[in-house]
Amino acid sequence: MRFRVYIYITFELKDGKAMKVNTNPVRGMKDFLPAEAELREKVRRTIIDTYSSFGYRKIETPALEHLELLGGSDGGENEKLIYKVLKRGEKLDLTSATEEKDLSEEGLRFDLTVPLTRIYANNQNDLPLPFKVIQTDNVWRAERPQKGRYRQFMQCDIDIIGEESYVAEIDLLTASSHALLNLGFSDFVIKINDRMILHDLAEKWGFERKDHESVFITIDKLDKIGTDGVAIELGYKRFSNDAINKMTADLTDFQAGRFENVKISDDLGIVIETVSIASQGRFKIEFDPTLVRGMGYYTGMIYEIKYRDYPGSVGGGGRYDKMIGKRTGTDVPACGFSIGFERIIDLMLERNDQTEKPVRLAVLFNTEKDDTKTIYYYSDAYRNGTIALTHKEKSSGKIFKKDVSVFRQEKKLGKQLKKLLDQGFTHYATLLNNDVLVVEELKADKG
Amino acid sequence: MRFRVYIYITFELKDGKAMKVNTNPVRGMKDFLPAEAELREKVRRTIIDTYSSFGYRKIETPALEHLELLGGSDGGENEKLIYKVLKRGEKLDLTSATEEKDLSEEGLRFDLTVPLTRIYANNQNDLPLPFKVIQTDNVWRAERPQKGRYRQFMQCDIDIIGEESYVAEIDLLTASSHALLNLGFSDFVIKINDRMILHDLAEKWGFERKDHESVFITIDKLDKIGTDGVAIELGYKRFSNDAINKMTADLTDFQAGRFENVKISDDLGIVIETVSIASQGRFKIEFDPTLVRGMGYYTGMIYEIKYRDYPGSVGGGGRYDKMIGKRTGTDVPACGFSIGFERIIDLMLERNDQTEKPVRLAVLFNTEKDDTKTIYYYSDAYRNGTIALTHKEKSSGKIFKKDVSVFRQEKKLGKQLKKLLDQGFTHYATLLNNDVLVVEELKADKG
Repeated sequence: MRFRVYIYITFELKDGKAMKVNTNPVRGMKDFLPAEAELREKVRRTIIDTYSSFGYRKIETPALEHLELLGGSDGGENEKLIYKVLKRGEKLDLTSATEEKDLSEEGLRFDLTVPLTRIYANNQNDLPLPFKVIQTDNVWRAERPQKGRYRQFMQCDIDIIGEESYVAEIDLLTASSHALLNLGFSDFVIKINDRMILHDLAEKWGFERKDHESVFITIDKLDKIGTDGVAIELGYKRFSNDAINKMTADLTDFQAGRFENVKISDDLGIVIETVSIASQGRFKIEFDPTLVRGMGYYTGMIYEIKYRDYPGSVGGGGRYDKMIGKRTGTDVPACGFSIGFERIIDLMLERNDQTEKPVRLAVLFNTEKDDTKTIYYYSDAYRNGTIALTHKEKSSGKIFKKDVSVFRQEKKLGKQLKKLLDQGFTHYATLLNNDVLVVEELKADKG
Repeated sequence: MRFRVYIYITFELKDGKAMKVNTNPVRGMKDFLPAEAELREKVRRTIIDTYSSFGYRKIETPALEHLELLGGSDGGENEKLIYKVLKRGEKLDLTSATEEKDLSEEGLRFDLTVPLTRIYANNQNDLPLPFKVIQTDNVWRAERPQKGRYRQFMQCDIDIIGEESYVAEIDLLTASSHALLNLGFSDFVIKINDRMILHDLAEKWGFERKDHESVFITIDKLDKIGTDGVAIELGYKRFSNDAINKMTADLTDFQAGRFENVKISDDLGIVIETVSIASQGRFKIEFDPTLVRGMGYYTGMIYEIKYRDYPGSVGGGGRYDKMIGKRTGTDVPACGFSIGFERIIDLMLERNDQTEKPVRLAVLFNTEKDDTKTIYYYSDAYRNGTIALTHKEKSSGKIFKKDVSVFRQEKKLGKQLKKLLDQGFTHYATLLNNDVLVVEELKADKG
């Protein structure tokens, strides 16, 4: 215990002078200690393994991208939040720099869609078509720090490039819902719509084609501001009262579950039916003509997953058939789904699963008297599952591999055992007569 | 195939004008396509799982760190290679900026040791002692681009904080060598030395204490420049000829494997003996009094793993008992080991393991006639291992889960099958009479 010091702003000796050093993570970002870091790793693996079982292939791109690509994407507001890196060496000329672009030509990615379109454009010859791809990686956005939102966060995207039919949508939605099921979530609802349906509606209501995006951006707020709020905002945007009134009538119907005035396409119908059957009653899929999704680049079906009363969604995506063409010169159909990794983690931390604690053994090595070879021989044997440790193992004969950590035995054994218990160890072992390792269960009353 | 276009510098329409856009990764960094990305994921998991089985716990820190921490570390040359990010908004005042520090206060980490000491200093109350920790994450160094070295690369570190005895070194070395064994490497050699032994030697040779680091930096080049080269460089540094001659005589002995003139400490002896026994003949551990390791912060034992004739090492580390005290104000013993992740990947790509190809099934969905429900029902059944697919499964009754990917059946089936074979699919299935899915093996002569 003698090493512990309880200061948070700490000191560094430099040129003989004490200096204050801030040991917090940088503003808006977060450190993950073991319990959370290991949960993140487990969730990440479950997602990757599920998607792999549906035939998706993993790719990886660098954290930094050309600013001209980041800035020229359809990333909307996110483009303002780019972390830009300083040019280096001779390229950086502070005396003549007048704008940010004189100082920087690379930035941290703010999503995984920009890198995907870039890597696809750059490797078309070597990639299969359709290309089913997974990306799980960090992205960075310099947002105003707020509770539960961090400036570095993990995104988990799957995309299918080169499939124009609804086969792609069925695949994305069945794979993603299986990922959620494998993470222990059920009773979620997939909301689905089609941008084409939205355009048809907007046209029927009487909005001009050039105004559709603006109308959709307002309808996207329906959950928060209600039908009246949407009508007021569109009035403020100076659209025709007649169109607004027609829209209000339909939205009121939609919210009440009356969809008589809207025509579902055959493709959307097939997707809903197929995913619904695949769900085997574990989750739902519902048409929602008020679903918009923020990004301007969507061209076809769009979808979102709601989990019980959790605000926002735990995942979503859509078809973006025109985006890749901007890089390659030829349109390629594409659609994607992004699981809300950080929200899933929040929900799992809240859920606080009471799963059975794994067996973790601490072997205590008394360096003053124990035979080194015996200590390490037994540690290895328990680790590899060649010796039974628990009563269950002994009686069943089924022996498992387990986590075994060797620690130097401290002077105050009781104190050390309490510490090990707090760390989640379930058993400890000491060497008896330099001959046999004696294992005991760690219990709360011990020590 | 109609979507493919074979251009690498591609175009973007902006304000009606065509613009050239560079779709390569940023300078000095690399994209990983599926085969390589999946190998990286597998290696990462094997390393994490092995270390976890030795009781190490995973932590995760943000990519960005305070520049004052990065700059004030013992990172040596690496400090010059930091990617710095521009301050944001009002904080960035281009008119008054005269130095880089006016423009930036955060940078991308260049190693995982700086974040480790920071997170430890910031969370001492919540962390166990000793703290056995794994980090596997990317780091960034703006080095001059050269073959096989990238500006973003993965580091895999384990560290033990708060253990002053050799128990720590034994643990790091047995765990790391098991990680290499689990990755399929054997016949590697752990070279081990102690900074104290180096200091004793330098003193015996007649170098002053203040000059030791400079002498070690030169001896570190022994592999490349030989004993004569070391003598010449030290002469150029104006050290006494007498000391240089004594050193040369010893170095010549050491290189010939004669260690009579050097005294091994008891602790080093125990580490070598224990790790040697734990190796069960699968790898070696050898004392090497010429081993220096670059970093100035090492205070005790240092070690490195050589793999056959692969130049450089595939991992290394050492004890750094004075580093954490710089952050916390109180010294805490610590030591670490870093597996050369990128080198391991290079070696595995070269080795090109001929492991058995996993079964991968492509289900071809003829959207014009097939019953959707049947297609997805069977796909799920093969994926979950509820129906046998291979002859081996049928005869043994042991059915495995497998990767199943649904694709829309293309007009030219032969062409599609060839493409699937190229992508590593081993089987394909089509729906017969809207009733049963017929599976066939994909073979090179097919199509």
